Amino acid sequence: MKFSTLLSAASLISLCISTITVAQDKHFTISQIKTASELRDNAMEGTMAWDILESITTEVGPRFPGSEGDKLAVKWAMKKFEQLGYDKIWKEPVPVPVWERGIGTGEIVSPFPQPVHLAALGFSISTPKGGIEAEVIHFKTIQDLSNAPEGSLEGKIAFISHRMKRAKDLSEYRKAGGARRIGAVEASKKDAIGIIIRSLGTDDHRNPHTGGQRYQDGIKKIPAAALSNPDADVLVRQFERGLPVTFKMNLQNKDLGQSVTYNVIGEIKGSSRPDEVVVIGGHLDSWDLGTGAIDDGAGIAISMEAGRIIGNMKNRPARTIRVIAFAAEEIGLYGGREYARAHKGELNNHIIGAESDLGSGRVWEFSPGVNESSLPVMHEIHNVLKPLGIKWGDNKGTGGPDIGPMHRAGVPALNLQQDATNYFDLHHTPDDTLDKVDAKDLNQNVAAYVTFSYLAADYDGRFDGK
Amino acid sequence: MKFSTLLSAASLISLCISTITVAQDKHFTISQIKTASELRDNAMEGTMAWDILESITTEVGPRFPGSEGDKLAVKWAMKKFEQLGYDKIWKEPVPVPVWERGIGTGEIVSPFPQPVHLAALGFSISTPKGGIEAEVIHFKTIQDLSNAPEGSLEGKIAFISHRMKRAKDLSEYRKAGGARRIGAVEASKKDAIGIIIRSLGTDDHRNPHTGGQRYQDGIKKIPAAALSNPDADVLVRQFERGLPVTFKMNLQNKDLGQSVTYNVIGEIKGSSRPDEVVVIGGHLDSWDLGTGAIDDGAGIAISMEAGRIIGNMKNRPARTIRVIAFAAEEIGLYGGREYARAHKGELNNHIIGAESDLGSGRVWEFSPGVNESSLPVMHEIHNVLKPLGIKWGDNKGTGGPDIGPMHRAGVPALNLQQDATNYFDLHHTPDDTLDKVDAKDLNQNVAAYVTFSYLAADYDGRFDGK
Repeated sequence: MKFSTLLSAASLISLCISTITVAQDKHFTISQIKTASELRDNAMEGTMAWDILESITTEVGPRFPGSEGDKLAVKWAMKKFEQLGYDKIWKEPVPVPVWERGIGTGEIVSPFPQPVHLAALGFSISTPKGGIEAEVIHFKTIQDLSNAPEGSLEGKIAFISHRMKRAKDLSEYRKAGGARRIGAVEASKKDAIGIIIRSLGTDDHRNPHTGGQRYQDGIKKIPAAALSNPDADVLVRQFERGLPVTFKMNLQNKDLGQSVTYNVIGEIKGSSRPDEVVVIGGHLDSWDLGTGAIDDGAGIAISMEAGRIIGNMKNRPARTIRVIAFAAEEIGLYGGREYARAHKGELNNHIIGAESDLGSGRVWEFSPGVNESSLPVMHEIHNVLKPLGIKWGDNKGTGGPDIGPMHRAGVPALNLQQDATNYFDLHHTPDDTLDKVDAKDLNQNVAAYVTFSYLAADYDGRFDGK
Repeated sequence: MKFSTLLSAASLISLCISTITVAQDKHFTISQIKTASELRDNAMEGTMAWDILESITTEVGPRFPGSEGDKLAVKWAMKKFEQLGYDKIWKEPVPVPVWERGIGTGEIVSPFPQPVHLAALGFSISTPKGGIEAEVIHFKTIQDLSNAPEGSLEGKIAFISHRMKRAKDLSEYRKAGGARRIGAVEASKKDAIGIIIRSLGTDDHRNPHTGGQRYQDGIKKIPAAALSNPDADVLVRQFERGLPVTFKMNLQNKDLGQSVTYNVIGEIKGSSRPDEVVVIGGHLDSWDLGTGAIDDGAGIAISMEAGRIIGNMKNRPARTIRVIAFAAEEIGLYGGREYARAHKGELNNHIIGAESDLGSGRVWEFSPGVNESSLPVMHEIHNVLKPLGIKWGDNKGTGGPDIGPMHRAGVPALNLQQDATNYFDLHHTPDDTLDKVDAKDLNQNVAAYVTFSYLAADYDGRFDGK
């Protein structure tokens, strides 16, 4: 590069810097930005998130809403908040329906007999004792099943073989999700006696992905299960032979009625405006098959640790950090909905909310859900997060599943979107275990949460336009 | 490079070539080498090995010796040899003990209750009905267990947490193998009532690795199981808390006495010396948990396809290619031992043998087990295999597990050693399924087998020094 060119470049850079300085309002002081940057960098150096996750997966394990594991998890969370030095710790009741998985076996009976691995979808009814055996009708998508003629599945088992693709975000999960969520209803409308689907998952292991599904009033409930992906492959290959396929499955589950579980909450008091809260969290419950490491022990560990770090600051931010370990997310956002209901009168003091619930991959996108007038300040917060490899998304964030209900009631939200590329290899399977988690990835998540939480809690204004 | 240097290099190369020409006897004609090279290259372009493997995994699946699946497998192999145009097809009886896996559940009872995934090791006896519950004593290696004082495990369950490492060859499997093979005997010597081991596997999935083990006469039989690796991790982490660990396991298996299964054999007749045979093969049986894709459907597919290709040649090699689908390898080489016994009088006509039984990874090493005098000809065969990325190993090959017995009786052998780097992720687990196999890798294996088989079958001499 020639000297004159260098000079021009330098002038241009200096021009740009001036332009930025002029163009943006400063919503934070140099000192606040410095503090936030230090919090960020220190978290990248190391946090206790891994230890918290190690603790819940080792000492609690599976914690399906209303189960013994769930009760242990509530005790664990109360104790963990205490160990981490939180100022105020309490739990709030959440009524839940309780379901328990029993026997779940399946086999291809003909043309070529083979046992398969399957798992009942959540709240699936049982088959009659000993199981059901019937011809299988193969649909490639939930749409194909929905388009089948009325009555065409009488006495049959429906099978949806739609294969979920890998993606960094939730787009493919959303596309494939219908088969699990409404498959039983759609199949029953055509008089099927059961439904099996290829797991909503991107892995090739013999571990089926369970997950939520809903029956519909007025539509007969039928048993519903997911096959592991290699087993769905075998079934498809048998169909390719052009012969009728017969399948047997035996699901014995229990509906245990109503129970109560708890949202567990820990607070780090704000220094000057303690009644105003920044909410972060994850969900405490997990599916029964795995140990809830990535779904959502990671979110619990990340948010508890972000709170702990702020609690240890010499000069805490103005507002309170409220960390919520939400109950019963997996079975229908019971904790998030109950929290929004119970705190309806105080939501005006909930300045912003963000839940971590997409595994343990690094945060790569920053998508607020705030009043347009607050976008400049969100951009300033995002600027501090940029060195973590986080890009700006859009203003359509809803804060994560359990923040959703309060967001819909007017509470601003932020999505610190995680990289979900490998998430659906493990999601809702027995393979959701600690060994899949990288401690450094957790640190990056903590860095994002602690930086955002500090700045949001110390910011003078609000994010809802009020 | 300068012109003069180029010249010198050229002279040196030409000198080397002359030296090689002089130094080695030519055991094959140019035409034989050309034919072998064409067989090799054509196989790399595409084979039917994948289709054969697709067929056995789809139409048969698990085929534990003596089971219904095993009977189907014998029928499948007879029919497949026929479909592939083999000249002579027959089966030879192999008496086997029959064992059947039943319930296999485990849970950590204290200090932190969690269910675990485990699988009984082969031929494990059952626990009493309802299972056994006892304190667990943790050993890091089988050696540590063997070194424990007499009587020190009275009423306890032994746990070996040795972690198997990843390797391209069998070295790490051999190192870790003792825990599975003799763990129950060693634990019983110290009066343990059961043993659980970390799976001999390199994966992190919730699928335990079963496998062979032996009880010893005079030593009380105790139930033995392998935990999946993530479950072994949890158990180790609970031990790290320093509290006593209690475990419950319930294994209900059946000893079904004696039965008969079959070695299934197909021959491609030699053109001029049909009574002399080159033996290749794999084993037809598999563990019950998976579908025997890599262990050893792959070996069956590779060897059946190599034979088929030679069967389709216009000018077949002098000797016969005998492809053996060995029975009951997994439970103790029953098929290989019975074959060597039944053919004791004809082993002199078994020119050389090679079994494919290390998955579906590419062949990377060529290790004969021949008379020293035959090494030059083996080097010539190896030269034709070199373009497949296969290096020379040593002269310690034993031909694979089922060739072993005839090799020990004097039959020369060849190991076309496969890359086992990922083999022990899947070995003996439910995850041994077709989707794990790369068709191109199978083609490379076929290329190696067909090239070797053709040259060995068309070679004028023998490999045993006679």
